[in-house]
Amino acid sequence: MAAPASAFTALELALEEKRLLVEDALRRLVGAGRTPAVEAAVESSLFAPAKRLRPILALMVADVLRGDAVSVLPAACALEMVHTASLILDDLPSMDDASSRRGRPACHVAHGESTAILAAFALLNRGFEVLAEGWPGAPGAEARAAVARDLARAVGLSGMIAGQAADLAATDRALDFATLEFIHSHKTGALFMASAGVGAAAARASVAERAALGAYAKNLGLAFQIVDDLIDATGSAGAAGKDVGKDVKKTTFVSFAGIEGARQLAAELIETSEGALRAFGPRAQPLRDLARYVVSRTR
Amino acid sequence: MAAPASAFTALELALEEKRLLVEDALRRLVGAGRTPAVEAAVESSLFAPAKRLRPILALMVADVLRGDAVSVLPAACALEMVHTASLILDDLPSMDDASSRRGRPACHVAHGESTAILAAFALLNRGFEVLAEGWPGAPGAEARAAVARDLARAVGLSGMIAGQAADLAATDRALDFATLEFIHSHKTGALFMASAGVGAAAARASVAERAALGAYAKNLGLAFQIVDDLIDATGSAGAAGKDVGKDVKKTTFVSFAGIEGARQLAAELIETSEGALRAFGPRAQPLRDLARYVVSRTR
Repeated sequence: MAAPASAFTALELALEEKRLLVEDALRRLVGAGRTPAVEAAVESSLFAPAKRLRPILALMVADVLRGDAVSVLPAACALEMVHTASLILDDLPSMDDASSRRGRPACHVAHGESTAILAAFALLNRGFEVLAEGWPGAPGAEARAAVARDLARAVGLSGMIAGQAADLAATDRALDFATLEFIHSHKTGALFMASAGVGAAAARASVAERAALGAYAKNLGLAFQIVDDLIDATGSAGAAGKDVGKDVKKTTFVSFAGIEGARQLAAELIETSEGALRAFGPRAQPLRDLARYVVSRTR
Repeated sequence: MAAPASAFTALELALEEKRLLVEDALRRLVGAGRTPAVEAAVESSLFAPAKRLRPILALMVADVLRGDAVSVLPAACALEMVHTASLILDDLPSMDDASSRRGRPACHVAHGESTAILAAFALLNRGFEVLAEGWPGAPGAEARAAVARDLARAVGLSGMIAGQAADLAATDRALDFATLEFIHSHKTGALFMASAGVGAAAARASVAERAALGAYAKNLGLAFQIVDDLIDATGSAGAAGKDVGKDVKKTTFVSFAGIEGARQLAAELIETSEGALRAFGPRAQPLRDLARYVVSRTR
């Protein structure tokens, strides 16, 4: 059962504080180059209203492990850049052909297809540039290289790109549960895991801690995706901020398991997610709250 | 005046040896993931017949500075991955809408548009992954981070993406020389400069050496582009390995200066390029030979 929204007031304040921190840092990290058209596309996609859940997850993991926000914030922003790049690509005419995203016209609708593709490229590139450059208070080059490596693995041919390719191949075709899980554990879960990894790296977490946080993040990501499917199946475009009902030709967790079945599945994933945090004891409470909050969301 | 091809026998042998070295390393670096369709697109684009000029430039610069090939080869391959990614994007229907490249159907023609876009993304991503991971004999994380930073700057909103955006904006419109130079110094020159930088980093070059090699590479890249325009204007698709005559609606160095004027300009750039090598004395002779060779090529 989803808890009533009022139970989340403290968490919501923390989320809002971190969201503003992330957006402020993103503004400083995405400065002017020599390409006004592409920069406008980057700007409108990156600064559309968004939850910033991936960088917030990185910051919260660092908090829980008593890491320093300064040492993690730009790396957390790189996660959001990569995520935004993936949204721009997903929406392209040759992919999902979506018309709106984050409450605005999709990037290619507003800026043209070639500019949208260049904007997505620029965002992925800038993410790696931020990690390579470092920042005042950044972890050393060795630790930043490990984060860049993990990010690249989350994006690459065994990560988000694998998930997106499988998703594109799946349109108009009924899927089994294993394929559906493959798609979303790669499209969404991989970057959630990398996000927890960014926070863990900043706090010099142990291998066991990283593994536990990775399991938490992966299950959280899948639950998040199921809630997305539920919003798509039951919500309005205004509330979702993007096209809804787009998934009618796709197998989703909702079409697979029904609305109640999908809700049940999300709840189970959140329990698994919380279970992975057991060794951290009470200090991981914010991450548990975040997991409960994610399944209760309606937009 | 272009020297006759026979003058280049020693250089041609060195180029062929390095080309094979690069292709062998690329095969080891681009392994199997979980995405057969995208991997096939990566494979056919990356392993189409190609000159490998950017990684070869990195290797030759390392040679001249007595750097170690082992310490530079995977970084040199990252340059070729990024270059190939840019070719895939350039050819897309929403960009140049080209039908062939490197003697094969363009990536989107053979593999579909969405797969081509994911392949380009995967190649850029893998380039940064290689630099982040390191390899046996690699420079330390600090040096690799500097290379990744330079590569990202060569790609980004003040680099290749800026050049491509300006190129797309320029179609069907007469250009002045400054704009033409902007386009190509960014689309081509930036990655040539990064290539020289990869070689220089492996040999721990001084700031002055890097600046000189950067000037060499930038002018070489522009000359290379002008020769490309000449091949497009005068050659056949079979010899060029890609669509020719595609540039009729674009201002090129040839349409701007005429065939003889473009040849003259390329020769002047090569002289400037060689001039930048003065401080290196005789040991930079292979780079001078490379510059002469580049303007003499017909495909």
